[in-house]
Parts: sequence; C-alpha cells; structure tokens
Amino acid sequence: MFPKKTYMERRWKLKVQFDSGIILFLGNEESPMNYSDNTYKFRQDSNFLYFWGLDEPALAAVIDIDNNKEIIFGENVDLDDIIWMGPQPSLQEKAKDIGVKEARSLPELSDFLDTSREIHYLPTYRGDQVIHLSQLLDCDPAEVEFNASEKLIRAVVGLREQKTDEEVLQIETAVDLTAQMHIAAMEMLEPGMFEYEACGAMEGIALAAASRISFPSIFSVEGETLHNHYHGNQMKEGDILINDSGAESELHYAGDITRTIPVSGKFTGRQRDIYQIVLEANKTGIKASKPGITYKEVHLQAARVIAEGLKELGLMRGNLEEAVANGAHALFFPHGLGHMMGLDVHDMEGLGEDYVGYDEDTQRSDQFGLASLRLGKELKPGYVLTVEPGIYFIPELIDRWKEDGKHEAFINYDKVEEYKDFGGVRIEDDILITEKKQRILGMPIPKEVDEVERICQGE
Amino acid sequence: MFPKKTYMERRWKLKVQFDSGIILFLGNEESPMNYSDNTYKFRQDSNFLYFWGLDEPALAAVIDIDNNKEIIFGENVDLDDIIWMGPQPSLQEKAKDIGVKEARSLPELSDFLDTSREIHYLPTYRGDQVIHLSQLLDCDPAEVEFNASEKLIRAVVGLREQKTDEEVLQIETAVDLTAQMHIAAMEMLEPGMFEYEACGAMEGIALAAASRISFPSIFSVEGETLHNHYHGNQMKEGDILINDSGAESELHYAGDITRTIPVSGKFTGRQRDIYQIVLEANKTGIKASKPGITYKEVHLQAARVIAEGLKELGLMRGNLEEAVANGAHALFFPHGLGHMMGLDVHDMEGLGEDYVGYDEDTQRSDQFGLASLRLGKELKPGYVLTVEPGIYFIPELIDRWKEDGKHEAFINYDKVEEYKDFGGVRIEDDILITEKKQRILGMPIPKEVDEVERICQGE
Repeated sequence: MFPKKTYMERRWKLKVQFDSGIILFLGNEESPMNYSDNTYKFRQDSNFLYFWGLDEPALAAVIDIDNNKEIIFGENVDLDDIIWMGPQPSLQEKAKDIGVKEARSLPELSDFLDTSREIHYLPTYRGDQVIHLSQLLDCDPAEVEFNASEKLIRAVVGLREQKTDEEVLQIETAVDLTAQMHIAAMEMLEPGMFEYEACGAMEGIALAAASRISFPSIFSVEGETLHNHYHGNQMKEGDILINDSGAESELHYAGDITRTIPVSGKFTGRQRDIYQIVLEANKTGIKASKPGITYKEVHLQAARVIAEGLKELGLMRGNLEEAVANGAHALFFPHGLGHMMGLDVHDMEGLGEDYVGYDEDTQRSDQFGLASLRLGKELKPGYVLTVEPGIYFIPELIDRWKEDGKHEAFINYDKVEEYKDFGGVRIEDDILITEKKQRILGMPIPKEVDEVERICQGE
Repeated sequence: MFPKKTYMERRWKLKVQFDSGIILFLGNEESPMNYSDNTYKFRQDSNFLYFWGLDEPALAAVIDIDNNKEIIFGENVDLDDIIWMGPQPSLQEKAKDIGVKEARSLPELSDFLDTSREIHYLPTYRGDQVIHLSQLLDCDPAEVEFNASEKLIRAVVGLREQKTDEEVLQIETAVDLTAQMHIAAMEMLEPGMFEYEACGAMEGIALAAASRISFPSIFSVEGETLHNHYHGNQMKEGDILINDSGAESELHYAGDITRTIPVSGKFTGRQRDIYQIVLEANKTGIKASKPGITYKEVHLQAARVIAEGLKELGLMRGNLEEAVANGAHALFFPHGLGHMMGLDVHDMEGLGEDYVGYDEDTQRSDQFGLASLRLGKELKPGYVLTVEPGIYFIPELIDRWKEDGKHEAFINYDKVEEYKDFGGVRIEDDILITEKKQRILGMPIPKEVDEVERICQGE
C-alpha cells in the first residue's frame, strides 16, 4: 500500500468538491469462474484501490459529507475463517492503515444509507455489484446504471487522470516487468512453435514476479485481427507476431506494451518497410505529445506519417492531408493512437470513455477509425498514456471498401491486393506527459529493426 | 469438442426425463476484471459445455420438450467483429457441429420463453446471469435462485456424475499436465525462494500448454491454512510446502493433485513421521474406494489410519474407534477426504453440494470435520473423485479446543503443543471407480518419501 496520507489526501481532494450527501464506494467481490467458490484471481475495483487502498473482497466505504465521516464496512474473521484462510488483522486495524477511524460490519451499510439523502456512486461493471446496489438503494437493477453520479464521475476522473510521482513509480515497475516479458518473447519465438507456448511462458514471468497480466494478451501471427485472443496458430518461417501485453505493479498499476516480432529472427524486405513506417509514426506520436496539444491532433500527425509511408510504397496516393482528413488511412490504421493508462490499462474506462478522453473542447469524431480514439482531449502534465500506431491488412475490410469504391482517390487497391497476406504491425510505448514535454516510462524495450532482430537471433 | 453424437446423446438422455415444458441453459458471459471490456479468461459454464459444447460467451440454448425442438440462441458476427476478433463460422454452422438444427438471434430468446409454460433452469453463480434470468423470466432477482428446477438439477447430476470413457480420457490428460506441474515444482523449490516465484512458474506450464489452472493454486509453506492463496512467504531450510493445484484439459475437465514437498530436498524425522501417516491414509482411502461402499465410510477409514498414526506418535490416545466416531481426529484432519471431479474441480458444486455428494441413504453429518465432507454417498462405477487426506497443526484451533478441554480423552494436548510450528501435510490423487475397484488417473506422480526426495534433490 501507499502511505496512509496518500489515501487521506485523495479522499480529502474528493470530499471538498461536495457540499452534501453520501459518497458510496463498493469494493469488488470474488469473481466466480465455474461455481461460486471457484474464483478467478481477485481484482479489486480500481476506484476502491485509489481512495481506500484495501485489496480484498467484500468491502464497502462511504464518505458522509454532511457529518464529515469516513467509514469502512466489512467483516471481521472468525475461527472458521482462520482455519481456512489463516490469521488476519482486524477490520479496525486495516482501516487505521488507510487513515479511516471507523469500521463497521457490512450488513450495517444498508441501514446507514438513508435514501432520503443524496447518494453518489460510480457506474458498475459487474452483475453482482448491480444487484448489491439495487438492494442498498432499494431500486430496480435497471435503474442502477442510470442513477450513477455524473458529478462523482467527473470528480474522480479529475483526480485519477493526473498521476503523482508515487503513481508514476508504480507504473514504471509495471512497465519494467512488461519489458522482461517482451524481451523473453523475442528470445523465445521460432518457427514451429505454437503461439500459446510462448504466450503462456511469457505470462508465467508475470505470475512468477507476484504480478499478473493487466489485460488479456494479444499474441498472434494474425496481427490484422486487432483483438485476437486466440493463441492456437503454429508460427511459420516468415511470420511476424504482434505481442500486445502487460503486467501489473504491486499496487495494480498497469503496463501495456506492443512489439512486433519476426518469428524467424529477421524481417523480410516488405515487413521491414511497413515496420519502419509504424516505428516512425510511434516516434512522431511520442514526440508530439506534450502539454497543450490535443491527443486527437497527435493521432492525426501519426496518421499522416502512416499515409506518407504508404504512399511511398504505392499503397496510397493523392493529397494526403485530404486523405487523412477523410479517414482513408483508417483502412490500414483503423484504431486510435492510444489511451490513458493507470490503475486500469484503459484508465477509468469503467467510468465512461468520453468522460476520460474528451471534454467540451474536444468531441469524439464519428469517422471510422478516429471514432475508436479513446483519448482526444488536450494533454496535461501528469497524464500517462499509450502511443500505439499500427498498420494492418484486413482482407474482409479491404474487400468491402474496394467493392464500395471507398476512398478510391487515395487508395491504390490493386497494390493493396498484394499485401492481403501481410498481417499487421503495431508498436506501442507508455509515456508520461511532463511539465514541458514527455518521457517514455520504464526501461527501454528494443524497437529499432536491428535491435529487435539481434535479440530475436539470441545475440 | 467431442463428436456431435456425444452432445446429442447427452441431451437425449436429459430430454427423456421430462414430459413437458422448456429446459433453458444460459452460457456464461465474459467476466469483467476491472471494467467491462477488460475481462478474465473466458470460462464457459460447465453444464453448458456438457450439453452444448460451444465454448464462447453470449449463448443460450433451450430444449422445448412439448415441441421436441432444440435451439441455440446467439449472435452472428458482423464486419466490425471481424476487424476486432477475426473471421468466424456462423452460428448456424456452430449449431450443426453439436447436432442442433435451429439457431436464432439471442434477443429472440425472451419472446420464445412463454412464461405460462414451465421453464426449468439450473442455479446460477454469477450476478449477470441472475439479472439476465430475472429479465427473461420477468421476476425479481431474489426469486431467480429460489425458482431453479430441482428436477433439472437431479437429472443433470445423474448424467454428469458417471463419466464416460471419453470424459475419463480428458481427465487423464488434465492429470498428466498437472503431474508435469507438480514434478516441476518439486524440482524447483529451494530455500530462499518466494512461494510466488515457484507457483507462477508452475502455473506458466499450464498456460504454455494452452491450458489454465482448474482452481486457484494452494502453494504454501503454511499448509495448516487450508485454503491459503497467499504466496508471499520466503521458503526456509526445513520448511514443507503443500502444493494443491491442477490444470484443465482441452475440453475443460479438471485435474486436482496435492503433494507435500520438503523445501530443502529432505524431510526431517518429524516431517517424515507425519508424512507417512498421511500417505498411508491416502493409500487406504484409494484402496477402499469401490462400487458399493459409501465415501463417508472411506473417509472414516482414512480418519482411523490418521488417528492410529497419531496415537503411535503420542498425539492421540484412548479408544480410537470412539475417538473417530466422536470426531476427535478432526483437530488434525478438519476437512473431507475428497470430492467428485469432472468439468468442475468440485464437480457440479454450483448445482448444490448435497445433490452431488449425498442422497436419501446418506445424509451429511453436522460434526466438525465430517460436515466438510463434500462426497458421502455410495460410490458407483464411472465416478471420478479425489482422495486427499491431510494432517495439520492449526495453532488457533488447537488453542481453542485445548481451552475448551475438547476431546481430552483422545488428544494429548501437551504433546500437540510441541507440533504447533509444524504446518501441514496433504497428499491427493484423482481416481476413477471401475466396475469392481478403482484406478488412479493419469501418469504416476511421486509420493513415496524417497521418490519425492530424489526429485527434489534433482536426481
């Protein structure tokens, strides 16, 4: 845990934004896999972690604004718990560690919540939370989502989006462990291996460091499938593999890195060409990210680099400013350049993507590609975000656009046909926006062509 | 998947037990970790796997008894899905693979379910399922659990409890992979290592084989804590570690093995004494398991072996028949000897433990220790179960019993005091009840003292 005063300060900064009512936080419960008692590895809710730090199931907490009180609700262990789970500190002791004076039994929460007062709570993403809230607030499950507090969402986003030094340190340890995973993967891959063999061994590195993966790994020679969680392909000579994966720090901050790896240790000429364009877009995106610029503009700068590179290869054509403005490049780069990262790999996505990534000045586009950009608004110091351009050749999408004659002025479909077996390339780093510029977080992870090839070849 | 006819037969055997109404199965949804789109690795519901085989989220299925129809409900993929998730067969094709002729869109399920007819469904264990069912059946979430069909539960238990050859084969591949994990752990452990280092590397073996752990690993030098999922201890010379872990087969059948490992490669004299008693109880339990005997009686036979061994060491005393009948041995062996195993590691536990483990002839005891026995009823050919006796010295339990003077006639508390730092030993195998006897499933996993020591010492 962070020192007690971190949590006290976070709650204080939240509290001062409210004049009255109750702020309610539900921690997560265990998450059943195939029956109640066979659970996935427990993951505390990130908002609960942020304000209350306690990393265990079956807790709730309130800030009673009117009476200026903070209370943790939970259960003390009995002898039966000790036999099965071992001795544990009391709830009172746990509360003390995070600067909370009052601890009560969880069943008391329902009585405490006087529904005649305003109760602010955050959106939920688990069914059991919905049911619990509907019971606590005496409302229909369908109303639970609807009644989440926009004021609280905005306040929490305002606090969590600017990372403190101690948070950045956590993220850097997550990225460092992620780096180990990525380097191990580069060393491991060879033709004949199945994706799951390498991916499983790589994820084992996170587990063996008392960590866990921060999101389901994308680890595929079919990189053109953007969120491919199938790991059953056998790798062949000449394949390139997209490894988009990350680990969590001790306090559950995320790392999120992508590297594209030549399975046989060397890129082909064509792969190298595409790779270099993506690398250039990655570096351009990183360099452009600093306080004052919107991330939408950074995204478009990276998109222009991609369009220019593809024009040089004869895949795009015409006026590229216009092409990018019209979204023609999105045939090859159909996703956003990046997202906030913190306690969640897509930080605070559970609170609503648009609260996190957009504001009055920057609205989300509805253009294919740009519409998928999770973060569009102006960057500020303390933001941590990913920069992850990619180029993909998605046969189904190419066929559809070609058939529709979409953006024919900008896309040379005849040439594109030749690349339909290419797959995809993505390169992603995690950066911190500093006072004037930005810096890449964590230890360097090879991304230059010759560096990557050297490691893949075991040099 | 199994051949189409396996699923058709299973459904047929279910169907013939019903005269009218609708049997409804909900598959599992993705399970959110820290926000909706960041999910744990998908685990299909075991009953859905058993009858319908399809291993993906957002499916439902019905058997309409009155109209003799089977229908799968789900969604077909659109272009957006293909971009993000890759090309996939249609729902119709998937239905065909399991011998189902009709496939419909999931939103149609609600209209299909005519609530004036009897709708049989199984108990749920995930909040989102409760909400989904309450919407489908137009009832309060609190009623969902209450209205689950006992007739359906009993019918499903009756089918799933007797494993076919093709299921046993699956279980054996799970146990074989589990064996690899256990042997690797024995080879790996050494003083100075942290539990998570070895446990993570061991779990990586399951992942790298395209498998997953079948339940949260227990991997602890504090073996006296029965369900210890904390892996933060540093192992010391002289420690013994309980490794209770398992992998799943391709079709999600479980393995579940326990071995107790001397961290420094050799048991001390005292450890060897206790280990030998547990090993003897394990072998006795296995040998006694055969058609016709109740597993409660097998449990008690193993308990008697434990009591006898402890008497020889001076820890118990008096008439042991009486001691075991009164549950005095449960101070050292406070859990049940084993449980059914199949698609769930505690097979069908989600349907209700007593439906699976007990019947009219064998009721669950309320005596401490015996009350925790998950399987008590008469064994039949085709049952797959675990045999997992243990001896533990749980300081808090010992103090409590001693203070209360509990079972003083049978327990020598003065001697027990000397063992309070001992920890625990458990040895577990998975067995199949055959026509006349039983056999241990999977490849042999060392459990004799000298075998275990040899592997630990890298010989």
